[in-house]
This record gives sequence, C-alpha cells and structure tokens, in this order.
Amino acid sequence: MQNPRRVRDLGVVVGTLPTGPLNAITDVPGVRVGQTTLTGDGLNTGVTAIVPDGYDETLPAAVAVGNGYGKLIGTTQVDELGVIETPILLTGTLSTFRVADALVTWLLDRNPRATSLNPIVGETNDAYLSDIRRRPITPEHVHAALDTASPALPLEGCAGAGTGTTALGFKAGIGTSSRTLASGTVGAIVQSNFSGLLTVLGHPIPATPVDADGNSCMIVVATDLPLDARQLARLARRAVFAMGRVGSDFAPGSGDYAIAFTTNRAPGYADADLRGPFQAVTESVEEALLNSLTMARTTTGHRNHTAHAVPHDLIRGLT
Amino acid sequence: MQNPRRVRDLGVVVGTLPTGPLNAITDVPGVRVGQTTLTGDGLNTGVTAIVPDGYDETLPAAVAVGNGYGKLIGTTQVDELGVIETPILLTGTLSTFRVADALVTWLLDRNPRATSLNPIVGETNDAYLSDIRRRPITPEHVHAALDTASPALPLEGCAGAGTGTTALGFKAGIGTSSRTLASGTVGAIVQSNFSGLLTVLGHPIPATPVDADGNSCMIVVATDLPLDARQLARLARRAVFAMGRVGSDFAPGSGDYAIAFTTNRAPGYADADLRGPFQAVTESVEEALLNSLTMARTTTGHRNHTAHAVPHDLIRGLT
Amino acid sequence: MQNPRRVRDLGVVVGTLPTGPLNAITDVPGVRVGQTTLTGDGLNTGVTAIVPDGYDETLPAAVAVGNGYGKLIGTTQVDELGVIETPILLTGTLSTFRVADALVTWLLDRNPRATSLNPIVGETNDAYLSDIRRRPITPEHVHAALDTASPALPLEGCAGAGTGTTALGFKAGIGTSSRTLASGTVGAIVQSNFSGLLTVLGHPIPATPVDADGNSCMIVVATDLPLDARQLARLARRAVFAMGRVGSDFAPGSGDYAIAFTTNRAPGYADADLRGPFQAVTESVEEALLNSLTMARTTTGHRNHTAHAVPHDLIRGLT
Amino acid sequence: MQNPRRVRDLGVVVGTLPTGPLNAITDVPGVRVGQTTLTGDGLNTGVTAIVPDGYDETLPAAVAVGNGYGKLIGTTQVDELGVIETPILLTGTLSTFRVADALVTWLLDRNPRATSLNPIVGETNDAYLSDIRRRPITPEHVHAALDTASPALPLEGCAGAGTGTTALGFKAGIGTSSRTLASGTVGAIVQSNFSGLLTVLGHPIPATPVDADGNSCMIVVATDLPLDARQLARLARRAVFAMGRVGSDFAPGSGDYAIAFTTNRAPGYADADLRGPFQAVTESVEEALLNSLTMARTTTGHRNHTAHAVPHDLIRGLT
Repeated sequence: MQNPRRVRDLGVVVGTLPTGPLNAITDVPGVRVGQTTLTGDGLNTGVTAIVPDGYDETLPAAVAVGNGYGKLIGTTQVDELGVIETPILLTGTLSTFRVADALVTWLLDRNPRATSLNPIVGETNDAYLSDIRRRPITPEHVHAALDTASPALPLEGCAGAGTGTTALGFKAGIGTSSRTLASGTVGAIVQSNFSGLLTVLGHPIPATPVDADGNSCMIVVATDLPLDARQLARLARRAVFAMGRVGSDFAPGSGDYAIAFTTNRAPGYADADLRGPFQAVTESVEEALLNSLTMARTTTGHRNHTAHAVPHDLIRGLT
Repeated sequence: MQNPRRVRDLGVVVGTLPTGPLNAITDVPGVRVGQTTLTGDGLNTGVTAIVPDGYDETLPAAVAVGNGYGKLIGTTQVDELGVIETPILLTGTLSTFRVADALVTWLLDRNPRATSLNPIVGETNDAYLSDIRRRPITPEHVHAALDTASPALPLEGCAGAGTGTTALGFKAGIGTSSRTLASGTVGAIVQSNFSGLLTVLGHPIPATPVDADGNSCMIVVATDLPLDARQLARLARRAVFAMGRVGSDFAPGSGDYAIAFTTNRAPGYADADLRGPFQAVTESVEEALLNSLTMARTTTGHRNHTAHAVPHDLIRGLT
Repeated sequence: MQNPRRVRDLGVVVGTLPTGPLNAITDVPGVRVGQTTLTGDGLNTGVTAIVPDGYDETLPAAVAVGNGYGKLIGTTQVDELGVIETPILLTGTLSTFRVADALVTWLLDRNPRATSLNPIVGETNDAYLSDIRRRPITPEHVHAALDTASPALPLEGCAGAGTGTTALGFKAGIGTSSRTLASGTVGAIVQSNFSGLLTVLGHPIPATPVDADGNSCMIVVATDLPLDARQLARLARRAVFAMGRVGSDFAPGSGDYAIAFTTNRAPGYADADLRGPFQAVTESVEEALLNSLTMARTTTGHRNHTAHAVPHDLIRGLT
Repeated sequence: MQNPRRVRDLGVVVGTLPTGPLNAITDVPGVRVGQTTLTGDGLNTGVTAIVPDGYDETLPAAVAVGNGYGKLIGTTQVDELGVIETPILLTGTLSTFRVADALVTWLLDRNPRATSLNPIVGETNDAYLSDIRRRPITPEHVHAALDTASPALPLEGCAGAGTGTTALGFKAGIGTSSRTLASGTVGAIVQSNFSGLLTVLGHPIPATPVDADGNSCMIVVATDLPLDARQLARLARRAVFAMGRVGSDFAPGSGDYAIAFTTNRAPGYADADLRGPFQAVTESVEEALLNSLTMARTTTGHRNHTAHAVPHDLIRGLT
C-alpha cells in the first residue's frame, strides 16, 4: 500500500509561483491550524480549525458561494461587516451546529464580556464513510482542535474534517498549499468532497464514482496582503473557480464555498494589482485539492463502505 | 399595571385589508406556532417555533437581509434551492447554534434516513434582560416548542424568543398579524428587538432608549399564495421595509432579516398581481410589530435591568 | 397658484441634524449638479447630471437595489470594483441608453486614451406627462447638463430628469437636501416618481392616484466621509429605506435604487461609527423627497394629462 | 493559410452528450441568431443578435456575474423579475449604449404601446483590433442583425460582435454549440475575449499574449427545458465556470458574464434533475469557446495590430 505523498513530491508542479516554506496555509504569518480526528466504530469524521491571530479584533473577510447547497454558518454577517471575528472551523454536515456551539463556548471562556459572536463553521457531508447521524463531535473535540492549532504543516488527507470525505471518485480529505508573492503570501486549506473527473494538470484520472451522499467543497483562503473585504470576495470567487481545474463537475447537490480572510488590516491595495493574488489563490487551491487526494489513505468506514486512495502511479510525474 | 392588549383592541387599525380570523400567522392554513418561555433567575429568553405542514417535502422560501449583523442559520441553501426543509426557530443570539442542533435532533428522530438537513434558526440579542452567556436553552426546550406547535393564536409580547427583547425604547417581544386577500392569506410573526422612535400610524411615541446590547429584528412571513422563491424574496424585502413604518432607525448593529415561505407549491402567480400580497405583508408586519409591543409586560431581568411596556394610553385610539 | 417652496420653508423640519449651507447635495465639497429641462409640445423630461470632482480617478461607490424594475446602467462594475468612474446622470426611461451614449461621447472628448468607460445612468418613467416614445434627449441636452454643472443649489421640482415625474399622487421631480456631521457632509438628490400615500412627518396627505405608467425612484447620495464601497452600500440601503418615511408603498413595478459615492478615498472609517451617517442619509433623503414635491408645479403634459402640485396648505407647519 | 474549422471537425470531441443537429444555439427551437460585421479602415467589430420567439411576452432568464468588470445592460430587472423582454445583443464595449438605444428603436417600432423596455446588451472590448473610440455601430447595423436573425448555424469566429476579439493569445470571436438531453436542448453562443492559457481537453496550447485592452467573455445560454429563473441562474453560473475548462485565468479586468434563458414557460423542473442540464451547459460552453477560436481567421486591424488564429495542427485530434 502506498504511503501518502504530497502531489509536489510526486513530481507534479502546479503553476509557476513559488510556494511558501511549508507549502501550506500556515505559511501566512499568524495562521495556525489544529485538527481532531475521529475514527473507528463506523466513524470517520473530525474537526479542522483555522485560527488566525487577531481574529478577536476582527479580520477582513469575504465568502464566495459557488453552489449554496451547504450549511456554512456565519455568512450574512461576513457579507455585511466584511470581517470574521472568530476562528474558522470545518466538520461533517450534521455536526455543524454543535461545533458552532462549542466554538461559542470556547470564545466565551476567552472573552468574559462577549454577548454576541458570529462563529464561522463550514462542512461537507461525510456520510458515506462515517455514521453521520450519530453526530459524534463533542465540545472537547472542538476545543482540542482549537487548542492544538499550530503554525506547522497541517495534517492532510484523512485528518480532521477530511477524515471521511471523498472527491472525484477517490478518498479525499484535507489539503493545503501556498504561494508567495513579492508583497505577501496566499495560502489555502480545503475539505474536498465533490464529484467530477479527477484532472491533474489537464490529465484525466478516471475513477469509479463513490456513491456518496452529499458532494461539497469548503475552501479557506488566508493571506497577509492588505486586501479589503470586496477584494477578498474576488479572491474567494477564484478559489471556487479553481475547483474546475481538478475536474469538479459543480454538481447541483454540492455545497461549494470559499471564505477568504487577511491578517493585514492595512488598506489600499489596488485592484489592478490583483492578478498576482488571483494566480496565487488559483494555484494554491488547485494544489491543495490535489494534496487532499494524494495524501489520503484508502479508508473503510460506515456500512463497510470503502473509498480508495488515488493510485500515485497514475499521477507521478505528470506535466 | 395595564394588561397586555393587541393594538387593534386599542382601537388602532393598521391599513385597510381584512385580517384573518385570528389576525395571526396561524391563519395561514397548515402553519402552527409553538413556544417555550424561560424566566426567572436572571433569564428572560426562549424559543419560538414556526412549523408549517409539508416542510419535510420542502416549501418555497426566500430570505431578505435588511442589515446582516445577525446569525440567521440556513441562508445560503435557501438562496440556492429556494426552499426550506425544516421548521423555522427563533431564539436568543448565543443559543442559536444549540437550538439548531436540537432542531436537527428532532428532525433526525422523525426521518430515519436523513443525512443532511438545513435548519433555519433566527435570533435577536436578549442580553439586556437575560443572562445570555449562560445559553440556557436545552434540547428539551426546543422540542417542547416544536411539539406544542398549534394553529391557535400564538402568545405575544413576553413569550418564547421574545421574552427578553426590547424595541424602540420599550419592552417588546413576539407579535403576529395577518391579512386576507381574495386568493389567500399572508401572515407574519416577529421577534422585535430594534432601535428607533416608536411610531404608531405616523404618531411618534418617544421613549428613553433602553441600553440594550444588540438591536435586531427577525420577521417570518407565511402565505398560502402560490408564489415562487423569487417572488417570496420580493415579499420578504417588503417585510424589512415595513420596519420603517413603526420607526426603526435601521441601526448599523441591527440584524434585520425576513424569511418568507409559502405552503402552496403550485406555480404561476404573476408578478403584476403582487401589489395585493405586498400590501398584505406590509400591513401584517407593521401590525405584528405593534402587537409585539402592546402585548409585552414591563420586565425586570438580568442585572436588574428593566424594560417598560409602552403605555397603552399613548396609543389608544390613534388614527 | 402657489409658488414652489422647499419643505423647510413651510416650517417642516425633518430630523434633528443640521443641514449644510445650501441644504443640498452640492454641500458636499466638489459635487456639482447640472440640469437640462425640456418642456412643451407634449414633452416634460430632461437630464440631471451629478458631477463629482475626481470621478476620472474613480471614487468609491455602491448601489442598493430596493426593487430592480428599472434600467440603471453600470451596476455590475460598481458592484465588482466598488467605484464610479464617470458622472451620474438621471433621465426618462426610454432615453436612458442614448443619454449613456452621450455621456460616453463627452468622456471620450475629455480623455483621449479611454477605450473603456462605465457610464452610470438612472431613470424613472415620465410617460404620464411626457411623450416618452419620442426619446427627445439629444447629446446636446446631455452635454449641457454636464457642462453647466455647478456647486449652487440645484433646481428642484420640475427640473431636469424630474420635469415629468409624479409621486404619491402629486407632481414630483427633483429634490435635494443635506446633513452635516462633525466629520463631514452627507447630501442626497432624488428623482421621485413612485406610488403610495404621501406622509409628512407621519401625517398622511391623501391624493387621487395619478394614473402614471411606471413608478420608480432614483436616489443619489454623496458624502465626503472616508467610507469604502461596502459601507457606502450600507448607506445606499438606508436611502431606499427612507422612501418609506414619506409613504412609498414599494410597489412591484417600481424601480427603486440608490447609489452612494464618496469624494474621499481615505480609508479607515469604523462601521461602529456609521450611526451618524445613517441618520444623515435617512434625513437628507426624506427631506429631498419632500422637496421634490413641494418644489414642483402643477404640470399638464402629454395627452393633456395633469399632475397637481401638493397644496402647501396641507403641509405647512406640520410637526 | 488554414481554413476555419469547427473544433469537432478537427476531431476534438468535448464531453459525452450528443449535440443538436447544427451543434449551435439555434438548435433550441425558436432561437434565431443574426449578425452584422464591420471590417476595414481600422475597424473589426459588429453586432450579434440572439432573438428568441416569445421574447415580447417575456421569457424566464437569469444572469450570472463571474467578474463584473463589464457593461452588461439590463441586469437588475432580470434579477428582479426573472425574465427578459427583448432580444439579446452583443457588441464592442463603447458601442454598447448606442446598440441598446437602437434595440429600443426597433422594439418601439414593433410595439406601438410600449413605454418601458429593458434591453439586454452585452459587450467585450475589441480595442486591440478595432478603433473602438469611433463607435461605428449604427442603428442600421443593429437592425440588420435583428432582421436577418435566422435558425441556421450562426457564423463563427470573426463575425458580428466577435469580429475584433481575441482570447487566450489567439484570434477569437463568436462560437456556438449545443447539447441534447432526453427532455430538451441546451445551446450556447459566446463572444470570447479573455486571457489565460488555451487548454484543449486538458492540453495546454501556449501562445504569446496579445496585448489587448480589456479581456472579457459574454456567454448566452438558451434552452427549451422548463426551468425557472432561479434554476437558470444555476445554469448561468456553470456557463461561467466552463470558461476555466479552456484555460481562462479569470483576470481582474475581465467582464465575465453569462445570461441563460428558456423558451419554455412551463413550470416544475426539479432541481434534483439539473445534473443533465448542468453537463449540457458545461459541454456546450466549452465547445462554443473552442469554436470561437478554431473558426477565427488571423486578423490585422487597428494600428496594424495582428491576432493570429490558433494553428489547427496544435489541436487536431487531441483527446
């Protein structure tokens, strides 16, 4: 059985921009990721926490909805105020609301005066490999993900909120990547769970469809470029578009979302200079999506369903 | 101390259309309302459940965001698919997520195959009169509201999700009203909690501002007219506009939302015929907002804060 | 026959904030207004030009759509880039496109390198009093409005794009007003043409409905506060809401739009400080709408249709 | 010099669904296309008219904005009412408004009672090959395109609004394609003018970038499936996504729009059945975009700029 490998370690180079040191969302200074993974007993699920420094003083942010068949919590306030005020969590569909509640608990503990909070929680549906109706995520799982958030390379593939997801006919999960520009860094982390035909640098990699219920994709984009919310919305839309580069069919039942935030509250980035950031987000999302596949392991779960890892031999060295 | 009275019983007649038999959202056939109220020990909060027959087969629906500083759960899927698939719940801000989770529990119990659900939960902030950080709403409270939903006249004023809210300087809460057209009924229920200068049929009723944290309004509009989601969005926007008729100042920190649904999946209503439904929604929301005030009782709560009921003598007989 | 009077000169004081020196959108430094008026031979129409200094280097701006039954040109680019790059013109519905073309001509003459322009042209339908199908507006009319734009008090009532409009059962037209805050000025100019029940400080002023085809309202808000496009969108929404204060019924066939811009590209205004600007926009739009009525003269036009000016005696001294 | 060929005639088969008889938008019954082409004297521009039967009684329609840096006329009313009420025209940027005015003229001639019209005119910027500042399109050019609209295979490549456009480093223009489903037909026509790296079935076809000012794409999707406006919006979004399949980089300065309409006003298509229509729109837009390139001829125009046709040898037989 193959070991998980990042797609770049398979010789596949996405795009032309240089990656950050970790090739991960955590290359953006101040951005940490923590994850809790639940496996066994018919469960393959978890929590992924993206924790940016300064969230408690709000950070500029925006959401793009590619296909709104999902439960992303917190969108209208982000649209109105152009900021996030909490970490961002990802999990399995039916656990979304208790994860949000646990995030509120965690935040209230840290802010003794807060009487209003807008938690951001995204999800995709891991029912194929996990007994989703049990909603096994507890506050302790959520708090562990938040408390262990670190600036290291996040676990990819079958980890956190990606433990039970599948994409493009293969086992998928969490993936991350980054790109650096002269003026800053753009990083992405994805929870991939959508249908289509896996395409690696234009090469189709057919797979027998996994009969999964719910196909979706949550993308989180972080940057330290001084973008405002409107510009971050433009980035977030490119993150959704980038799903097409790996073969998403943008199916009617998919909840395809991107949320982009910056740790840099300085103003004044010109729209005319967005070509670089757009390329960075496109490349980092494409590579994060591929990492979510190549880093995943074949997994058997609920009702003995199995999702197979994509054979690296089909991908290695593609150009 | 005055007894709660509906504004129409004070001689104030809003608009010109006839009301339904109950002058309530429950005049729309198949729409039931249930509420759980928590008081005492620094708490004034609760849950209000709007339960339309047929929600489990989906009902056309749409959301209008007047000011998105709120946590309304479920919006992106309603936007995408144009339907609700669950009852609609209202509660206090920090309990929103556990209320959504309890709604999911209730729905999973009723649908043994569901692996995805889009709960709709709105909120306003009752922190002035209720110890909101305790998040006292339990699943049992939520389930009680759902299980006791009835087609009777809903409790108004200090009931359910309106137990701890204030509006326009006075104690406010839940209010409802309806209007009938030749072709069907339009009903509204509100959770009022916003700032401004109370205005009754154009007459200002000044009040000392209540120093409440969080000013918002959740409006739910129901109808049995055969409207599609796009048309319901047009209705929902008029519901938000109607807040201006009672003196809302549409403050920056207010989460002002309306969600409109129909129990009638038949297609084919002409936009040219929407003038009647627009008038019906405008009148029923205006009257529901007034009822939320005149039906409320002076309330003392958290930290000994008091919100006074609007003196009926200031309103009685206004034309 | 009464002479046109501004509503404040009738003793009616809208709100509590001080007005600018002219009580007009031209109180915002750098904002000029020019108008061309066509009357006679069945025509009552024209062009109103709002010309802010610095438009050619772009100015932050946003559009709010209350009811999208209109032809406002230029919206998607304003949404995307958050700026205007041209003056804003108002006219009658069927002339919208030739007015936009004439604006392009004027701009090309001033910028020898421009190969792309996003003209902003709003409209309402003046077919009741003007032979709209003749589309009588020529490039010369448009250029005259642009070239004569001045910082003086704009003509109100039957002037420019308001020459042939009616509102709330009375002759209406152009109106303007402003409010000053410690930090800057907010001004509004309106082209009023919508249905409902005229309401002055809460007092209804019934009128026999004018059988006009097309009921709409275009509102332009200018400020020198350092707001970004997202915040200007929040202002623009309050401008639409303010229509309710004078009795708009927000009819299905009305094109109700506001566009807000700032002449101040500095960043960094806090959303928490928007309460003042929101009040300023609400008051200035309400007063501008009233001015559009009280400054209008009884007008007879196309097919001998007549729209009567609102009798000042019904309004004078209302509080 | 190579003769223009449709991409399918080069042996390139996009997707798996069958095409209609013409492999064109005109395979949708009742949809006609007419074009006027202007060349010579530094001009390469024109008009493309999509004329569906029944437009005058309105047809369900929706717009998707991928990147709103464009001048598409008519969007807010389509958003509000969910219909088009005129043919759809495409042209070069600076001619947009006079083309809209000419469309109004044509419509007024055909409807003696119309006093309000919402023309739909899209554009991309052909300034690289055409002296755009001359705005050479006359009403006669517009009327000719409308009057000659036919159900035949439309001219592709350097025709109509595509005469002067370039895409992905090559000469581009108009392209069309269609797909048939058991329940109906989906067809697309495009005016391609955007940047990126041409990609044919995953194979990159590098080109020296054309130094064009303005990169955009207008996509029109027609169907006879009984979809409502909300569902057509979902289709239109997939049309934008499909630009990624041929290598669009979704650049910041691109105006990327799709408008989808149906000739079938019957209601009741289920969202769960949209997978087929989504595939049909994705395939037909991808093939239409490729046709816009392979059908184009090398063109020299304004200031002696030249855009080269993509060499068929680079594409022929790709799988």
